[in-house]
Order: sequence, then structure tokens, then C-alpha cells
Amino acid sequence: MDYRKAGVDISAGNEAAKRIGKLARSTFNERVVREVGGFGGFFSIEKLGVENPVLVSSSDGIGTKLLVARLAGKYDSIGEDLVNHCINDIACCGAVPLFFMDYFAISGLKPTTAEDIISGMVKSLAKYNCPLIGGETAEMPDLYSPGDFDLAGFIVGVVNRESIIDGSAIKPGGKIIALPSNGLHTNGYTLARKVLFGMAGFEVFSRVDSIDNTVGEELLLPHICYLDAISKVKDFARGIAHITGGGLKDNIIRILPEKCRAEMDLEGIKVPPIFDIIQRSGSIENDEMYRAFNMGVGLVIIVDDPDVDRAMGRVKEAGFNPVISGEIASGNRDVILKGTRYCQSDG
Amino acid sequence: MDYRKAGVDISAGNEAAKRIGKLARSTFNERVVREVGGFGGFFSIEKLGVENPVLVSSSDGIGTKLLVARLAGKYDSIGEDLVNHCINDIACCGAVPLFFMDYFAISGLKPTTAEDIISGMVKSLAKYNCPLIGGETAEMPDLYSPGDFDLAGFIVGVVNRESIIDGSAIKPGGKIIALPSNGLHTNGYTLARKVLFGMAGFEVFSRVDSIDNTVGEELLLPHICYLDAISKVKDFARGIAHITGGGLKDNIIRILPEKCRAEMDLEGIKVPPIFDIIQRSGSIENDEMYRAFNMGVGLVIIVDDPDVDRAMGRVKEAGFNPVISGEIASGNRDVILKGTRYCQSDG
Repeated sequence: MDYRKAGVDISAGNEAAKRIGKLARSTFNERVVREVGGFGGFFSIEKLGVENPVLVSSSDGIGTKLLVARLAGKYDSIGEDLVNHCINDIACCGAVPLFFMDYFAISGLKPTTAEDIISGMVKSLAKYNCPLIGGETAEMPDLYSPGDFDLAGFIVGVVNRESIIDGSAIKPGGKIIALPSNGLHTNGYTLARKVLFGMAGFEVFSRVDSIDNTVGEELLLPHICYLDAISKVKDFARGIAHITGGGLKDNIIRILPEKCRAEMDLEGIKVPPIFDIIQRSGSIENDEMYRAFNMGVGLVIIVDDPDVDRAMGRVKEAGFNPVISGEIASGNRDVILKGTRYCQSDG
Repeated sequence: MDYRKAGVDISAGNEAAKRIGKLARSTFNERVVREVGGFGGFFSIEKLGVENPVLVSSSDGIGTKLLVARLAGKYDSIGEDLVNHCINDIACCGAVPLFFMDYFAISGLKPTTAEDIISGMVKSLAKYNCPLIGGETAEMPDLYSPGDFDLAGFIVGVVNRESIIDGSAIKPGGKIIALPSNGLHTNGYTLARKVLFGMAGFEVFSRVDSIDNTVGEELLLPHICYLDAISKVKDFARGIAHITGGGLKDNIIRILPEKCRAEMDLEGIKVPPIFDIIQRSGSIENDEMYRAFNMGVGLVIIVDDPDVDRAMGRVKEAGFNPVISGEIASGNRDVILKGTRYCQSDG
């Protein structure tokens, strides 16, 4: 008996590590002190230029979106999903990204699949000047079925303590600005897959009237990164919520202070047609749709009323199409959703 | 159709998050700026007292040791494994831990199992003053089989740039000090499980002559944390290698500079009996054993010859039983293992 016969191929692991190392080096900036491959990744924080520096970290996965990638045999975009999700989470707090690490677990290592996945990560990391300084690649044939894998990311950014955006400065009268999503981003895939591939009998290559992409392509659209929009408004934004698992309600509540209620009117939000197809295929109730999915809103920015035009202008400058979608009222810490696109009788 | 019927129970997720949050708060120190639960974890690096600070990060899993935990129904120690593995990796570079985050993916969330796992992490994190400032808990019933899960950790520490230990100062004449492991730590479990539970027909509750523990208990002994030993010698250690996947050879090579060869004599190393049982049960060749497992050495510290007594004394003070196990010679960057306990004819 040996390790290879047991299902772990150290040589393939080393080959994958070499390829990943090369990709990682392409993201390095002047703060990366050593190359990937030691026992740790090294990132200098000398002269950061941040007065009272606070590190902001987040750890995330991409859920079962990776099973869609597998069905479609397309692995080059889920790395972008992971990075963009992580960047959004810390950017919401006012932080800028410093560096990134990944955890990649797989049944058996095909160096080329690993390379595809990491190349997607690297594409987004390079764009946002966030080096990939290390990671773990684990081969676990008895935990993951052949072809299955899991992928997690870990990001560290920095913010001046006095500039942390946490929603505590939100007050009644504030305006809610919604930034569109391009689809499911990285949440709700367990439900979406059950409905689309199970109940409705679609395959990843199926085409549906209302969308140009195949179902698989539409589901694999990468999570949008909102860093450029956030950077333009963070000096005066009162609260920023990344709309992930739990939808608009759960994620906006996370940033609301006591005695503030968010009243959203979603009339002006264009809901991507994939949500319509999911809802109708699964006869899913309206509330459940808004709890499981972002329903067309990927980020919410809350500003004081006098700042709303400035915020709208800056977000547009950054290339996004923001919509003023409600305001902050006095009341219990809650989120009221009006003008939702669907109603239960359609479901 | 709804999310719960699709296999994702948001309420159970929230309950687990609440329990995890409570455990995490027990590890907080004065540098944790906000509580777990926002979009990111916040850790102040103001006045770190480190002159040219470099962050050292590592990401790790515990491999299929988690399948042993599952077989034994014992989830309280694998969190310690994860934390100790991560701490060792950055401590090897001379860093002290700052904070930790986790990624926990599971088929269906039982809040109590999650709590058991996290409580093991927290036990070790609290001991080493390394707060758990956030993490991701992902429920993915279609990726993981019922009861299966994966667990990854991300650690960030700090070191003065001038004090990074990377092996570059190792030179011929240096002495190699080995610190004992207590078993497999977190590597080689795919091979060990195949041999013990497959070929040999053991169960986790089986007892074998040469060990007091059951096979499961022996396999679940937590990975030793070497931070206290490393702290005592890091001012003069020339290189430190954490013996993980790839064994003594691959891990020591990682820190050897050009023209330095490590010549180890393992005669004095007590190899835990579990390795003997694995080798005999699987007829595994000697070289393969030393490539897949740590074979009784969890950490290697390399010091200049005049420092060896001081190093031995300090490591003993920290509660470890070090063994002088070889020296650095001139030669190709390689590791020679002599006096290995087993030979192929026994296999």
C-alpha cells in the first residue's frame, strides 16, 4: 500500500502547487516580502499610511455555485466570485483590500482544473491590487466525490478606526441607494439548482426564452465587485450592506442602529429574469424569494438625505447604475420591502 | 418549494451562528474592535510594538482526520488540531499569532456539532491569546453527504521583518533538534484510514496490544502546538520546520539554503506505536512511511553548533522533550535520513 494507491497523488499536488505559485506571483506587489511556498505568506504593513489601522477580515465560500461550474465544466469564473464576494464584505466596512489566501479542497487533483480556478481568482485579485500570498490545497478523495471540490477565500484589508462604516451613523431621513446585481451572485444556489435542474428539468446548456445565455451561463455570471463604487462614497456613506445569504432584509438589518427602520420601494429595481424563472419553476413564495436571493440588488448604500445626489453621481462615475430605493424611518430595527416585483398569486 | 425543503435551514444556521458567536467572544482581547457578526472581523494593529511589522498568514485544513472524528462521533478535538497546525506554521517563521478565522462547510447544520467543533478551536485559541474574529459557516447538502463536513482555518500573525526565520541563515555545522509529535498530527489520514479501517479491519473502538487508547482515540490525539518552544529559541534559531504533509524530507528542504544538506540520525526518536501498526497492516515501504507521515517528529529546529545546549535547555523549559538528531553538512540541498526505525524487510 502507498499514499498514491490510497488516492493521494503527492506528485500531482506538487505540480498543481507549482502552477498555482506561478499564478500567485503575478498578483504580488511591493508589500509581499517572500514568495509563496514557505510555511506562511508574508505581507509588510510598514508605513501603511493609515492613522489608526484596523485590519478587517472576512472568510467566504461560493456555496453550491461550484456544483453548477462542475455541471457546465467551466471553472474559470468561480474564483472571481470568491474574490469579489470577499472584497465586497470588507469594503462595506470602509476597508481596502491588502491580501488574500485560499483553501481549495478536492477529491483528486487535476493540475489544470486547479489552474483554471485559481486563474479566475488571480484575474480579480490583480485588478484590485490584492496579492494572493498563500493558501492550502488539500486532496481528500474520501470526503469529496470524484470531480467535487470546495473553495474558500480569506481576505484581509485595512481601515482607519475612525473611518469604519458600521451603520451606527444611520438616522431617520437617510436615503437608501440600491446597486444592481447581475443574478444570484453566490447565494441561493441549493434552492435554484433544485428548482431549475430538478423540478423544471433544465440542463446547464438549456436555453430559456427570456435570457440570451444558457441556464448554466446565466447561473455562472460572476459576483459583481462593488469596491470601485464604495471607494467613491465611503467618506460620507452612513452604512453599506452587501446583499448575500438572507437577502435584503437580513443583510440590511445587520447595519441598522436601534430605532431605525429601512423602508424600501423596489419598484425601480430591474430583477434579472433568472429569478422569475426560478420562482415560477418552483412555485416559490414571494417572501421566500426575497429571503433566499438578492432579487436584483447586490449592494445597498445608505447616505444622509443631503448627500444623495452626490452619492448617485459618484456611483455612476464608477460605472454602476444606482437606484434610489427607499429611506430610513423611525421605528423598530426592521426592513420593510414594498413594490416587490412578484406577488404570491403569481407564484 | 422553499429553501428549507431544498435542504438549507436558515433558522438552524442562525442558531449555530449565535452559539459560535458566543464561543468566539470568549477569545476576544483588547485588540478586537467589533463583535463577530458584521460583514468582517475587526482587529486593531495600532501600537503593535513591532518595529518593521510583517503580517504572516497561513491557511490550513485538517485533512481526512475529520472523517475519523465522524466515525468516532467525537468532534471536540479537531478544532484544536486546526488551530495548532496554523499556529505552528506561522510560528516557524518567527511570528506570533494575532487572530484567526474559520471556514466550516457542512451538509446539514446541527448547531450542537458546530458548537463542539468550534469549542475545540476556542480552547486552543484562548490559550494562545489569538481571538476568533469571524468565519463562514456554509450549509451545502448537495456537496457534502449527510454528516460530512470540511473545516479550514486562516491565521494572521506578525513578525519584525528583520526577525523573520526562513532558513537562509542555516550553515554547515549547524545542529538539528527534533521535537516529538504525539502521532499523525493532521497528515497522512487518507493512507492511515485505508490501511487501518480497510485492510486491517479495525474500527475506531478497536484496541491494539501496543497502545492504551482505542485506534480512534489514538488517531484523534490533537496536533501539538509548538509555539511555547519556538518562542524560547526564536532569537537565535536559524531555521524551523513544521513537519506536515511530505514528512521530514519535504518540509526540511523548504527551509534549507543552497549548498546545505541536512543529515539526520533518527536513532533517538521514539516513533509512536500507531505508525508501526499502520506500516505492518499495510505493508508500506519505509520511504513511503517517511514521506506520508511525520514518524514521531513534529518540529525541527536548526541552530548553530555553539547554541545547541542553550536551545535544548530552553525547549525543555517549555515542556518539550527535544532530541539532537543530526547536523547540517555541505552538499546539495537535500535531507538524508539515517537510523530510521523501520526497514523494508519488516514491511
